[in-house]
Amino acid sequence: MASVRIREAKEGDCGDILRLIRELAEYEKLSDQVKITEEVLRADGFGENPFYHCLVAEILPEPGEQLGPFVVGYGLYYYIYSTWKGRNIYLEDIYVMPEYRGQGIGTKIIKRVAEVALDKGCSQFRLAVLDWNKKAMDLYKALGAQDLTEAEGWHSFRFEGEAMRELAGR
Amino acid sequence: MASVRIREAKEGDCGDILRLIRELAEYEKLSDQVKITEEVLRADGFGENPFYHCLVAEILPEPGEQLGPFVVGYGLYYYIYSTWKGRNIYLEDIYVMPEYRGQGIGTKIIKRVAEVALDKGCSQFRLAVLDWNKKAMDLYKALGAQDLTEAEGWHSFRFEGEAMRELAGR
Repeated sequence: MASVRIREAKEGDCGDILRLIRELAEYEKLSDQVKITEEVLRADGFGENPFYHCLVAEILPEPGEQLGPFVVGYGLYYYIYSTWKGRNIYLEDIYVMPEYRGQGIGTKIIKRVAEVALDKGCSQFRLAVLDWNKKAMDLYKALGAQDLTEAEGWHSFRFEGEAMRELAGR
Repeated sequence: MASVRIREAKEGDCGDILRLIRELAEYEKLSDQVKITEEVLRADGFGENPFYHCLVAEILPEPGEQLGPFVVGYGLYYYIYSTWKGRNIYLEDIYVMPEYRGQGIGTKIIKRVAEVALDKGCSQFRLAVLDWNKKAMDLYKALGAQDLTEAEGWHSFRFEGEAMRELAGR
């Protein structure tokens, strides 16, 4: 089996990250929602005060292979703030291409996020999953995550578009 | 009725903010979870790269009253990042003291968050609510928010403590 490396994303990975963002949105059946561009990803993630951080999973070429490494997954996160616990991490996206699943690559990304969280003094990290994605929910539970919607009844709300402009009186 | 002002929090408000954080945690029946201190709130919110931002609602004294303004509510938010839409706001906490409810103070805080979001080029802001807090859920819906857990099936997951350390192999 080819070997897999998890590493911090570089600015040059933004094209691959965007390709995978689009694939993930298709998988979530929400691909019409993707408005971001490679240029925005470069500017927002790799400036002086980045708005996000990203890990990529790449397949390394076998000895003697002519191909370079190939990015097959990513985990995109940022820092959030709990008024109970202080600084924490939110894993906004985690995705592995379907043809590379079943090799533990998602778990490797999750483990790396846990390492980053501990290194940065965070006591927790959060993420959100769609309830029909039972495979992902089962994986996170098996890895020790708690389903806060199920356990405590947390619902996620969003204001956007016209509703937000009306609220702001514009 | 006394008049209410919504303004950006200053470092000197951290004592009041902590008092309200503790009240909110009691209201959510989770007050044993609050580990934060006033010192941490000062350092994290008022340094060069603040981890959070905060609005406070204060009751202004009537003409001739000897008392100063009194902080009765807060909204604490930070910037998050959507891989579909770019930079957005997350309203981590919103709270108004019970004896000052029913005057539209919560709505005023929400409206100000919408203004900040638009000013900063954000297309949305999100928040989370406990499902037994029907009053809050109804208010947000009336103001135009969408319940993403109900509408799309999003569940919130959290890794922490021992589970997170095990993941990181520590």
